[in-house]
Amino acid sequence: MDAKAINYEDASPQVRAVFDDIKRSRNLPDVNNFWKYLARDPALLKRTWESVKEVMAPGALDPLTKEMIYLAVSVTNGCAYCIGSHTAAARKAGMTEDMFGEVMAVTGMANETNRLANGYRVPVDPQFE
Amino acid sequence: MDAKAINYEDASPQVRAVFDDIKRSRNLPDVNNFWKYLARDPALLKRTWESVKEVMAPGALDPLTKEMIYLAVSVTNGCAYCIGSHTAAARKAGMTEDMFGEVMAVTGMANETNRLANGYRVPVDPQFE
Amino acid sequence: MDAKAINYEDASPQVRAVFDDIKRSRNLPDVNNFWKYLARDPALLKRTWESVKEVMAPGALDPLTKEMIYLAVSVTNGCAYCIGSHTAAARKAGMTEDMFGEVMAVTGMANETNRLANGYRVPVDPQFE
Amino acid sequence: MDAKAINYEDASPQVRAVFDDIKRSRNLPDVNNFWKYLARDPALLKRTWESVKEVMAPGALDPLTKEMIYLAVSVTNGCAYCIGSHTAAARKAGMTEDMFGEVMAVTGMANETNRLANGYRVPVDPQFE
Amino acid sequence: MDAKAINYEDASPQVRAVFDDIKRSRNLPDVNNFWKYLARDPALLKRTWESVKEVMAPGALDPLTKEMIYLAVSVTNGCAYCIGSHTAAARKAGMTEDMFGEVMAVTGMANETNRLANGYRVPVDPQFE
Amino acid sequence: MDAKAINYEDASPQVRAVFDDIKRSRNLPDVNNFWKYLARDPALLKRTWESVKEVMAPGALDPLTKEMIYLAVSVTNGCAYCIGSHTAAARKAGMTEDMFGEVMAVTGMANETNRLANGYRVPVDPQFE
Repeated sequence: MDAKAINYEDASPQVRAVFDDIKRSRNLPDVNNFWKYLARDPALLKRTWESVKEVMAPGALDPLTKEMIYLAVSVTNGCAYCIGSHTAAARKAGMTEDMFGEVMAVTGMANETNRLANGYRVPVDPQFE
Repeated sequence: MDAKAINYEDASPQVRAVFDDIKRSRNLPDVNNFWKYLARDPALLKRTWESVKEVMAPGALDPLTKEMIYLAVSVTNGCAYCIGSHTAAARKAGMTEDMFGEVMAVTGMANETNRLANGYRVPVDPQFE
Repeated sequence: MDAKAINYEDASPQVRAVFDDIKRSRNLPDVNNFWKYLARDPALLKRTWESVKEVMAPGALDPLTKEMIYLAVSVTNGCAYCIGSHTAAARKAGMTEDMFGEVMAVTGMANETNRLANGYRVPVDPQFE
Repeated sequence: MDAKAINYEDASPQVRAVFDDIKRSRNLPDVNNFWKYLARDPALLKRTWESVKEVMAPGALDPLTKEMIYLAVSVTNGCAYCIGSHTAAARKAGMTEDMFGEVMAVTGMANETNRLANGYRVPVDPQFE
Repeated sequence: MDAKAINYEDASPQVRAVFDDIKRSRNLPDVNNFWKYLARDPALLKRTWESVKEVMAPGALDPLTKEMIYLAVSVTNGCAYCIGSHTAAARKAGMTEDMFGEVMAVTGMANETNRLANGYRVPVDPQFE
Repeated sequence: MDAKAINYEDASPQVRAVFDDIKRSRNLPDVNNFWKYLARDPALLKRTWESVKEVMAPGALDPLTKEMIYLAVSVTNGCAYCIGSHTAAARKAGMTEDMFGEVMAVTGMANETNRLANGYRVPVDPQFE
């Protein structure tokens, strides 16, 4: 029992409606802890879910590519919860172990060269303006 | 004239060999400022280029996907030089305006939800461990 | 027993003087782990406490507003210890659950739009210079 | 003339509707560059504006407090555009020079102590769990 | 003329006293912009200078080592002003071009491996606890 | 038993060769968890180790200075694993408790003043360009 999370059985109708939509859209029996915690602020829960749902829908990019970008950002920021949940989501969307290794390699290299560009104070090339 | 950058005509044979490999691999008439600045430390230049070349080569992920991940990390870190150069590289690899908008949308959303997970101190769900 | 922390009974007179001032100022029976760990470097302990005390005192901003700003920064940086201690401090200073939700919502949104401004490379409007 | 921004006269009806709502809500003759750049992705523009509008509305916290939190996060992330625009917004909402100094002082101190807590690996006190 | 900076001739006696101490301690004819801007908040100016002076004084570490650590942190955070001023300070304290290259190399590598450790979710080895 | 790590007895000849070189170079009976996790991607393991080995070798800077810079960056980024492993490495290379306190003090101060420079939008002094 976690007093800081709202479970389905204790949720208001407004929160339940969001939980139902998450479970239906993601085809899951229950929502993750992230949503149970946000449910303490029903407006935040609803707005965040609707934004995430819209942003992660297939579009010009497929869901797997989007999940790998989400993971790369979460790794850069060092958010343990997000690394856990988006590694799982990316694997569910088709990320193999080889793809995971390459996402990590690119993320690591970008974090390194970002600092080299900062430290050497490299001016932007005219063709990149 | 920029005393902090090494141009081809002033470069040592060791630096020229790296510049030649960059120009050949990337099919460019000249290297970007990033490499001209790193050239002040020939060992750093060589090691960084060889790592970038290996990491960004096609593998389990295609070059476009890798460039978009690189861009998402650079945007998260706020590295102006890297945002400029990797936006250009991603467009050259096939990123359309619609894809760019979606990379930005996912990057923005990940940065937001990373902080919501931090602030609500959400415990990792057992299935993500 | 934690060999890395200095407890009151093991503290030097200089460290005890700082601990006493913290307990008196904050009206607490004991100091938090943060201060017990910093006490390994008495000069760092003294300087940090005196700065925190001065910065967090009521001034043009009230203590609650200051604690909420402290929390927003700690959430942005992902410092778990600081999120725990400053959530507690903000609640003690009067932060309600609704206020907490709004601090999180603003913090999340700022982290998102910071990256959109970075990624779209938005030039500063003349009126903001 | 900036080919990367969408001005009102070149905007689609969908984008104009958002621009009109921003100008009306903020009582401004024109929208900032931020919105003109996001307008390249009309769905992103609409979603971001609606979220910002909802989050920044008066609630349990007043608009000035919210703007100061927004500024503290932007300063922590080093987003130059956002620091400029949210300093202006906070001043418009009533932030005095003294308040600005205190927002900076708290933001600076939080960034320092976040790292001291990280580096000394301070365990969370039981009362903060 | 910069209305946001306080120059010596326009400074209050309290601010002048700090400026004089900075010039004397650093053996400089004038203070850097950083101090002229902080002078808008005399208490912040005084507290920040006294802390910096104490922290950067020779101790268990020499001033050059301290300046290189300051630079590595500033590069990691992407603070352009701080990278400029602390590169200059480190060079004045004896940092050669070879040392600069190694500071950058270590900083870049640490930023990379920090993310690899995050992304692979590596558990802390018992001997490091 | 940790299915996510590769131990020596389960490693391929290519991975064992890297592990052997790490143990020999560092004079350790076994490699740290970091390397066991990276071993899931043998190319990443090899490239990362070779880069770290080259970067951390004695050069213009001694190994202790390099380890303290590595630690300052890891503390700034909040990477718990890296803080643990590089605190241990720095101590092994000769970092005393007094030196540790000064690394933390400089790291904390740099993180604070980086934000003050951001927030006050201090222009770079001409002599630092």
